[in-house]
Amino acid sequence: MEKVKLHINRERLKQSIATLGAIGMNAQGGLDRTTFTEVELKAREWLKAELENLGLNVHVDEAANIWGKRPGEKALQSIVFGSHIDTVPNGGKYDGALGVLIAVEIMKVLQEKGVKTQHPFELISFSAEEPNPFGLSTFGSRAISGKLTGSDLLGVQDHEGTLITDALTAAGGNPDQFQLCVRGKDEFAAYVEVHIEQGKRLLNANIPVGIVTAITGIYREEVQIKGVANHAGTTLMEDRMDALVAAASLIGALEDICASYPAKELVGTIGKIDAYPNSANIIPGEVILAVEIRGETQEQIAAARQLWDKQKATVVQKRGVTLEATTKLNQAPAQMSETVMEACEQGTRQLGLTSMRLGSMAGHDAAHMASLTKSGMIFVPSLEGKSHCPEEESRISDIEKVANVLLQTLLTLDEQEG
Amino acid sequence: MEKVKLHINRERLKQSIATLGAIGMNAQGGLDRTTFTEVELKAREWLKAELENLGLNVHVDEAANIWGKRPGEKALQSIVFGSHIDTVPNGGKYDGALGVLIAVEIMKVLQEKGVKTQHPFELISFSAEEPNPFGLSTFGSRAISGKLTGSDLLGVQDHEGTLITDALTAAGGNPDQFQLCVRGKDEFAAYVEVHIEQGKRLLNANIPVGIVTAITGIYREEVQIKGVANHAGTTLMEDRMDALVAAASLIGALEDICASYPAKELVGTIGKIDAYPNSANIIPGEVILAVEIRGETQEQIAAARQLWDKQKATVVQKRGVTLEATTKLNQAPAQMSETVMEACEQGTRQLGLTSMRLGSMAGHDAAHMASLTKSGMIFVPSLEGKSHCPEEESRISDIEKVANVLLQTLLTLDEQEG
Repeated sequence: MEKVKLHINRERLKQSIATLGAIGMNAQGGLDRTTFTEVELKAREWLKAELENLGLNVHVDEAANIWGKRPGEKALQSIVFGSHIDTVPNGGKYDGALGVLIAVEIMKVLQEKGVKTQHPFELISFSAEEPNPFGLSTFGSRAISGKLTGSDLLGVQDHEGTLITDALTAAGGNPDQFQLCVRGKDEFAAYVEVHIEQGKRLLNANIPVGIVTAITGIYREEVQIKGVANHAGTTLMEDRMDALVAAASLIGALEDICASYPAKELVGTIGKIDAYPNSANIIPGEVILAVEIRGETQEQIAAARQLWDKQKATVVQKRGVTLEATTKLNQAPAQMSETVMEACEQGTRQLGLTSMRLGSMAGHDAAHMASLTKSGMIFVPSLEGKSHCPEEESRISDIEKVANVLLQTLLTLDEQEG
Repeated sequence: MEKVKLHINRERLKQSIATLGAIGMNAQGGLDRTTFTEVELKAREWLKAELENLGLNVHVDEAANIWGKRPGEKALQSIVFGSHIDTVPNGGKYDGALGVLIAVEIMKVLQEKGVKTQHPFELISFSAEEPNPFGLSTFGSRAISGKLTGSDLLGVQDHEGTLITDALTAAGGNPDQFQLCVRGKDEFAAYVEVHIEQGKRLLNANIPVGIVTAITGIYREEVQIKGVANHAGTTLMEDRMDALVAAASLIGALEDICASYPAKELVGTIGKIDAYPNSANIIPGEVILAVEIRGETQEQIAAARQLWDKQKATVVQKRGVTLEATTKLNQAPAQMSETVMEACEQGTRQLGLTSMRLGSMAGHDAAHMASLTKSGMIFVPSLEGKSHCPEEESRISDIEKVANVLLQTLLTLDEQEG
């Protein structure tokens, strides 16, 4: 059978999206499938069973990444494709999961049509791509690219005191031999990931296929502000050192810095705030903020960080609080491979579709895979640009198109790459 | 024996403070004895056993208030004294507990000396005085004064979904017959409560006995701000409706209003903030603030509230967020009884001590008891004015003095009151 005639099965893919999307669904219709939780482990079991039923060689590595390998005809490097199945709290059923489900669907098509490829094809479902209670996002891809090591895991726990080493073990990983999951630069021929855009550019341009040129840089720090907890009645305004009021002025300052920055593609967010003791009649003595700055270039991020550091110093000086900032992530912008982008464009043309190139303001596992192999991403339009919420949605017609583009891209790379 | 020669047993009281102070102690040396938690139920059991060992008539009412009654010689109204044993999260071992433990010590002295009083003497330990996960503080005193009714409890739950009706039942209360705990205006002759000052005025004046003239008014509301949760990378600054940035400007505004208010005794605090979904890479879609304004007069509170309402309207208009404010408490300032204040002063003089009159910026159960009977409070100096924290402390020498003043006050009231 001619490889260009291969197509994925739309109804079967739609069914897979519904099945995985039911694992962790909450009362608001959102998904609570935070990494390493009981419900996420259930989703992992479902995925492994799917891959085993397909007859793939299934392997869970030390970082609990799930691999499903289909042998190739030749002793070549693997062509890898996939994404992740964990979600943010009350997230949607497409972010991450769609890339894994399309990968599964492609494996199904290859198996049922008996397609022979030169390279081994490997599906991967990365562990803990989303920010999680352990404070370690893109966990699996950082682990296999050697950016996250076993010593980074020591003592790391969630707010309930669960150690990540225990959670990882429960998910099938192995913190004691964590280094064994690291992969070499010569092991893969390419990596391609399908993901929803999480923005509105494709939708606004009415183009079904987005070909990613680069992935945004992300700087993330935790800021701990310490004031003095005291009684909210008996402590006069002038005698207070309120950590929340100090935090509030920083929250406003970050918005000012980013909103007035000349480049549109610089954004700053404080997505997480925890005050202690967090009780109505106690002046907050401590506040912890999760701060994030994203930009298209390292220079943009550095400039915004400089202004941000100045604001922190001002608040410390003005209010007498103490402040400690800890870098949680400092991920440089990652260029996608021209070879992969061209293979995607060729696949798009073969299918009679149109595509556009665009940058990704969201971080992805592909950013880390780019340090190991030629990497690329294909975006599916997001309805209303919504993501990380129950309303996150993509049209099945667009999903089908992109799935077929990925299939063609992988087959093109299989033929091109030696 | 001459009643004026009666004294409490300092060592025994010190031991009681240590014993109750160990129930719920956390690793930081603070107390986690939030109302109706397992550990608070343990403290209740300890207290009831103490009262039963003393041979008092112990009764737990429908609001789970614990009463211990010692009969009087005549058919008169009871003289009531006590406080509460629940704490704020990571609180101290004196706030509330000291008033109950001094009451227990006084009962012990009366029993061992076989003192006969005209009036029945009743100890009370009120339920849930502190703000708690059910959002209902001064629970027990509001219940018996008819300000909190069974219908106020319907559907009320903590963030883990536990219904207050279930928690109350577990503590020995009875939500189905809640109205039975309401007491009449003719049932009590007086109420006197010992409490730590939670401020520095007594300490600074080097006076061991504080006689409270009035209890601050407290206005408390919950403000829910709704923006739009979205991806922290792909949503440009100009496209955001960030509920946390909106909340931050309100937090700053409340400080501005209260710090610039002409009266020192007006304070405003946002002690609790909860952002949703509270994840590093999601723009917060919703924030809930617990807002509190306290003042010596209703006029002060009303004036501050007016400015605050204006700020809320401004933020809604400027940022497009929606905002809903729900009043949680609107407690008028409460005057203490001149009769009780004078009895306290007489007791202080009899013991050769000095006292000062002062207002209370903290709310207390005595504010609600004041609507049922002549009420008063005696304050013990707080070291460094610290309260609601592990460092909360009072000197045992001051505690002993105030305990003896309370004992004399109760005996004076017993003689005076018909």
